[in-house]
Amino acid sequence: MSVFVSKLKVAILGFGTVGSSVARILCDLAPEGIELTHIYNRNIDRKRVDWVPSSVQWTEDFDTVLNSDVSILLELVGGLDPAGSWVRRALEAGKSVVTANKKLIAFHGIELEKLARSRNAHLRYGAAVAGGIPVIPGLQQGLAGDQVTRIEGILNGTCNFILSKMEEGAEFAEVLKEAQGHGYAEADPTEDVDGFDARAKLVILSRLALRADIDPNEVPCRSIREVSAIDFDYARELDCTIRQIARAELRGGDVLASVGPMLVPRASPLAWSRGTENTVLVGGHYGGDVVFSGHGAGGHPTAVAVVSDVIGIAHGSRAIDLPSKKTAIGGEFLLRHSIRFVVRDQPGIIAEIALALAEQRINIHAISQKPGYGKDSLPFVVTVEPCAASALHRALTRIGNLTCLIEKPFDLQILEPEERV
Amino acid sequence: MSVFVSKLKVAILGFGTVGSSVARILCDLAPEGIELTHIYNRNIDRKRVDWVPSSVQWTEDFDTVLNSDVSILLELVGGLDPAGSWVRRALEAGKSVVTANKKLIAFHGIELEKLARSRNAHLRYGAAVAGGIPVIPGLQQGLAGDQVTRIEGILNGTCNFILSKMEEGAEFAEVLKEAQGHGYAEADPTEDVDGFDARAKLVILSRLALRADIDPNEVPCRSIREVSAIDFDYARELDCTIRQIARAELRGGDVLASVGPMLVPRASPLAWSRGTENTVLVGGHYGGDVVFSGHGAGGHPTAVAVVSDVIGIAHGSRAIDLPSKKTAIGGEFLLRHSIRFVVRDQPGIIAEIALALAEQRINIHAISQKPGYGKDSLPFVVTVEPCAASALHRALTRIGNLTCLIEKPFDLQILEPEERV
Repeated sequence: MSVFVSKLKVAILGFGTVGSSVARILCDLAPEGIELTHIYNRNIDRKRVDWVPSSVQWTEDFDTVLNSDVSILLELVGGLDPAGSWVRRALEAGKSVVTANKKLIAFHGIELEKLARSRNAHLRYGAAVAGGIPVIPGLQQGLAGDQVTRIEGILNGTCNFILSKMEEGAEFAEVLKEAQGHGYAEADPTEDVDGFDARAKLVILSRLALRADIDPNEVPCRSIREVSAIDFDYARELDCTIRQIARAELRGGDVLASVGPMLVPRASPLAWSRGTENTVLVGGHYGGDVVFSGHGAGGHPTAVAVVSDVIGIAHGSRAIDLPSKKTAIGGEFLLRHSIRFVVRDQPGIIAEIALALAEQRINIHAISQKPGYGKDSLPFVVTVEPCAASALHRALTRIGNLTCLIEKPFDLQILEPEERV
Repeated sequence: MSVFVSKLKVAILGFGTVGSSVARILCDLAPEGIELTHIYNRNIDRKRVDWVPSSVQWTEDFDTVLNSDVSILLELVGGLDPAGSWVRRALEAGKSVVTANKKLIAFHGIELEKLARSRNAHLRYGAAVAGGIPVIPGLQQGLAGDQVTRIEGILNGTCNFILSKMEEGAEFAEVLKEAQGHGYAEADPTEDVDGFDARAKLVILSRLALRADIDPNEVPCRSIREVSAIDFDYARELDCTIRQIARAELRGGDVLASVGPMLVPRASPLAWSRGTENTVLVGGHYGGDVVFSGHGAGGHPTAVAVVSDVIGIAHGSRAIDLPSKKTAIGGEFLLRHSIRFVVRDQPGIIAEIALALAEQRINIHAISQKPGYGKDSLPFVVTVEPCAASALHRALTRIGNLTCLIEKPFDLQILEPEERV
């Protein structure tokens, strides 16, 4: 008994890594009720493959797809433009859209969902966060009955690859080059290493999990570029590693959020991701912590999420559309920090640092100095008790004036349950 | 703009730990479009609470619920009878059912889903496997586009609590008593410790992930009762711990499946669950391994899954119903084993064991004997290279005749990627 009266026609927009993986899965698995009919790309002759059925129409013209009898457009081009206008035009024409475009959904998702509803079309973006890991369906379908208060995630595979490699002793610049060689990092790595990719994903998760619409531009991002191999040596002393963490938490009426490198205790599930893997921790008031982990990027894992969304639409499964509301980013996490100094050794340095911290009412927890460095460029680390990053940065600004400093001090927050003060 | 014309009326059947947590969440969160109208239990006066709205009708009569205008029945009674007949009668009457009843779904799920479809009613059971962890929605909605070939899970919180505690040095009997004290284990712990609970969940996951309907009675189950504290000492030498693992894998046209204690390498995500936590690993052909982890049991986490299913129905989100087919359990995993012997020491024991193993073409990998035991009751462990459990058990039957044995030899398989031979 088939529930499908006729097949839903599907078009792929963008035949890159993800697009060709989607075509591959649709051809291999031939899911019931779904037929691939169009593939759009620029310079189509460069892209043609012989394993796609000859019935599929290849085109370089978006309007050919839009004006066809295709029901679902798979937007796998990425970026805000022209992808955004294509998605809008498709929804306006009453066609459903499946997209892997985190940036588009982070910045324009609410408006696009509204448009989709008004046309009785589907807009699905399970692939936009954590690729093949079903975090979005898990949140929408499986955790709708909880009150989620907290998200912590490793949402960018490139950063995780780089930091996992640095853990073995390499420096940022050389690992970045290696990641670019593997195709894990772009020629311009800004979106990944400076946190903007993870930020877009965090904004989407905040909307679905915390039901809070936050402005991506308000989320503070710190780059992982400043992390140095020596920071991993000191991290080990604290039984931690270093990862790019995207986090958001409901606090009062606001959301606390940040993206950047953090010290992660080895006992945390967020310390377990290796290579390009992603991990997402969702903390619920009723259900406690749920952890999702797996391949967050790459053609095939991302394609699984895209094809799953298409199957969902074909089976008439509506995404659960829970109300979210505009919420400000406000307040600060109060966490322990570890600060790396590199100095030309001379008497009185610790006294100066201690004084500047005391002025901001920040208590020193420990000072650690590894042997094997000369007095003219001596690294050491100061761990401080829980404090706001803003207070610490005021202290570090003052400390930054010390002439003995060889480098700007570099601080990392420690990801651990917060002491409420 | 509300999508809800009128509220869906909901009844709770069974006001135990899960039922009262469901009521609590429905009262606290008041999800849009849903109204709790009935609570059924035996001896209702013993159960009444004052925090439920006075509009809710308490009843000891199932027919009162069935004949009311309730749209969704939440079956939280458990067991095959009378729960099974209630679910059937509700579906026959065109009412939707949400259940946490793994046994009912494992043994009768296919028939009940068919009945639900024929009446255009919903049958949802997200809470039946791994409680608050959205494995079922993750599989149905997020991994429908993959070809899942393998499931490995810690699906029983009671066993995980017991084995986590034994890891710290305690023996089975005392930890079982402690678990019973906490309410983590039943007075009769058979369902949990002998593997039947995990087996029911594995059967459900096989259907949804592998699309293979397997007969629960065909899945080999081994109890964790025979695991001893000393096994953890030897596990540590192999950089492993011991967990109850439920696993199923597509192999040719058949499914390989088993439930029981295994040695789990510490690097595996399945070694990370602590206490009553559950972990499920889903291996996909396209998307690779995805891991879900969290609280697999308990009132609140299970209630989150139940309420999420109710919200899904209220939002018109149909569960994706992918075709599965009847599949036989066949074949054997080829894995390394570790075998614990306890003997009265005398010359020639190792020679006898080696001979019996060699007869079955099983190679010894290592022999390990910890100091500190007397010659009259000497434990040691033999690790063998990958072999089928049936061949090993033939060897152990022969070895079992040795008069020097103080105890029956006890073997554990090591959970690691299989060498294909």
